[in-house]
Amino acid sequence: MPRVVVVGAGFGGLHCARRLAGTSVEVLVLDRRNYHLFTPLLYQVASSLLNASDIAFPVRKVFRRSRNVAFRLAEVTGVDAERRVVRTAEGPEEPYDYLVLASGARPNYFGEAAIERHAQSLNDLPSALRLRNHVLDCFERAAVAGAEERRRLLTFVVVGGGPTGVEYAGALAELVRLIAGRDYPTIHRSDVRIVLAEGADRLLLAFPPGLGAHAHRRLERLGATVRLGALVRGVDSGRVTLSSGEVIAAETLVWAAGVRADTLEGGFPAPRERNGRLRVDDCLRVPGADGVFAIGDAAAFVQDGREIAMLSRPALEQGYAAADNILRAVRGAAPRPFRYRDPGIMAIVGRGSAVAVLRGGVALRGWLGWWAWLGVHLYFLIGFRNRLAAMLGWAWNYILYDRPIRFIVREARPES
Amino acid sequence: MPRVVVVGAGFGGLHCARRLAGTSVEVLVLDRRNYHLFTPLLYQVASSLLNASDIAFPVRKVFRRSRNVAFRLAEVTGVDAERRVVRTAEGPEEPYDYLVLASGARPNYFGEAAIERHAQSLNDLPSALRLRNHVLDCFERAAVAGAEERRRLLTFVVVGGGPTGVEYAGALAELVRLIAGRDYPTIHRSDVRIVLAEGADRLLLAFPPGLGAHAHRRLERLGATVRLGALVRGVDSGRVTLSSGEVIAAETLVWAAGVRADTLEGGFPAPRERNGRLRVDDCLRVPGADGVFAIGDAAAFVQDGREIAMLSRPALEQGYAAADNILRAVRGAAPRPFRYRDPGIMAIVGRGSAVAVLRGGVALRGWLGWWAWLGVHLYFLIGFRNRLAAMLGWAWNYILYDRPIRFIVREARPES
Repeated sequence: MPRVVVVGAGFGGLHCARRLAGTSVEVLVLDRRNYHLFTPLLYQVASSLLNASDIAFPVRKVFRRSRNVAFRLAEVTGVDAERRVVRTAEGPEEPYDYLVLASGARPNYFGEAAIERHAQSLNDLPSALRLRNHVLDCFERAAVAGAEERRRLLTFVVVGGGPTGVEYAGALAELVRLIAGRDYPTIHRSDVRIVLAEGADRLLLAFPPGLGAHAHRRLERLGATVRLGALVRGVDSGRVTLSSGEVIAAETLVWAAGVRADTLEGGFPAPRERNGRLRVDDCLRVPGADGVFAIGDAAAFVQDGREIAMLSRPALEQGYAAADNILRAVRGAAPRPFRYRDPGIMAIVGRGSAVAVLRGGVALRGWLGWWAWLGVHLYFLIGFRNRLAAMLGWAWNYILYDRPIRFIVREARPES
Repeated sequence: MPRVVVVGAGFGGLHCARRLAGTSVEVLVLDRRNYHLFTPLLYQVASSLLNASDIAFPVRKVFRRSRNVAFRLAEVTGVDAERRVVRTAEGPEEPYDYLVLASGARPNYFGEAAIERHAQSLNDLPSALRLRNHVLDCFERAAVAGAEERRRLLTFVVVGGGPTGVEYAGALAELVRLIAGRDYPTIHRSDVRIVLAEGADRLLLAFPPGLGAHAHRRLERLGATVRLGALVRGVDSGRVTLSSGEVIAAETLVWAAGVRADTLEGGFPAPRERNGRLRVDDCLRVPGADGVFAIGDAAAFVQDGREIAMLSRPALEQGYAAADNILRAVRGAAPRPFRYRDPGIMAIVGRGSAVAVLRGGVALRGWLGWWAWLGVHLYFLIGFRNRLAAMLGWAWNYILYDRPIRFIVREARPES
């Protein structure tokens, strides 16, 4: 049986392997994590609303009944396209006949080492948990700090006005509304400052202007401050300088200003775009590397003259498409070009409100957008338990106005 | 108003402060964690059954409606009984009129540095999460290891046949039954070895002999091996030597062989027992330190010639008693001696079975014990949400035979 190695169990890799389950190929999924992560909800873990386990799902469980799909926990360090093997940090090399690179993305600091050092990110589960711990810790420290230090500890700068930045800023504003004056009787809501900085002249660039403006108004009503046309010029411990010259004394900088492909740094010699994505042809194949496909954030797939955005939905569709093209190649048929039919995008802006654009340009906002958001996210969460747990978490938050998971849990010592 | 400082928000400290809420004293609770932890269920977090958030509860939320109770997140480093202040690692000293030391316990390695270095513990939330990660990681590594290494990675030695060791060994055996051959198709249940080592000649010394024997049989039926009269003589990386001379090649050593008081190491000059507990009089006062009480694991309270065990229930009762004695002192009344009326003890041994001794010596086991265990644990869990979440978790496990939270989630880099 031809052997397919899938690197990454995110939206692209997982759905590719799912499509290949039960077919006449042997599949090996490699990931450095043992779970599939529903990244669109990471910001809810970071803001004390959901448990990590509500948005994660063990990869091995997904494929438990699929005899032809195996999983291995491994960090992939490179690919030898000549010998057709994948190299891993520890343990054996894995040979392949077909390779699917679905290795996802990591935050893009655009080479700014100071930002990388000081910023919190919202990229994976550890970083979301770290951000949760960090924000609560700022409140604890502020409760016993002097006036100036307190102000600094309670200032949170979120960089990036895309869905991640907007959703996190909204969720943080609601967390503040819940805990300021209540969990922390000496901290008033007006002591807390949330600044959302976006380089462009409006929020949510990928959405129609009306929805960006709506999100802008919603965020300000929730108590956040929006700075448009504002890039981060410099960061040192405790201070963020914007391109306008404004200096903000802030303990916390949350980096949501973009991601770049995390494609086996240096380990796969194929042409890439500046954002790290591998160039692929219209059938998702990496030119010059026989049998190699790239999908999702790892692949710079160009359609109608533009690269498809790094989002979960196109990754998922490309996972299916790559699987189908592999099965076609196995039986000697010609591959079929991939075409992305955008079903729309959406972003939640605080409690009970969202903005969404559906296929055909239908724009939703407020309650209607929120219901659409709810349905789509429940549908794509993997596993009945996760759906149930997330739904209960949202209902709990919605009815009781509570963020139950406000714990500071840190590793006391590193794992040996 | 007289100021009461409570050190520790475990069972003793939390219930002491609860009793003082709404009275005419000012209360400050200090803890290095921002949550109260239901430690009797830690082993269920370590065995992928419950979320950390199901057994933790934010301290600030407990006292949100109590105007006279405040909380501060702080590591207490010592007490100056002369000046009547509590010293903290960072931030201001806290003056007190009355002080309640409820600082809990930590694992007792009896001075064995090698054990402390190699062992996993089950003492707090980070250690339980670390143990969960570690066990799953052993399975992942075993799946690609050679025969000998694989055997070593799949051997788990649990030291200590008290409730913690018995409950964890049982929960681990059931986790193995669930994942071996299913999540890990190449690992058979018989490849996994769980050894429970106890120094005495039977398990559960605090229970009547019949119940210890019952737990012993149950554990063996679940696939664990019990070694009685077995002390750990030596540990190095990958090998555990027992007092019998038996050498077990094992990656994992879980230390459940006892705890010692964690009473502000060296920072409070009062007489202690060898287990670190402070001597107290029959009213829970520390002799020679005016206004200072010690309770729970921190206090060596002697009743009928024996020290009361380090368990959550006596700590809780002593919390109430210390609070009452403080209120009596405030109004000039004489303190009342504390007397512990043991309501019984219980331990769960795998799915749907427990052993329990109730007041008056009534012994329960099997299903009946399990229902008693369920009722008691739900009753003492704090917060409706935690009760609901734990109950759903147990039902999920019970009906579907699933451990949903089997994730390896590690901090990628230390919190700055």
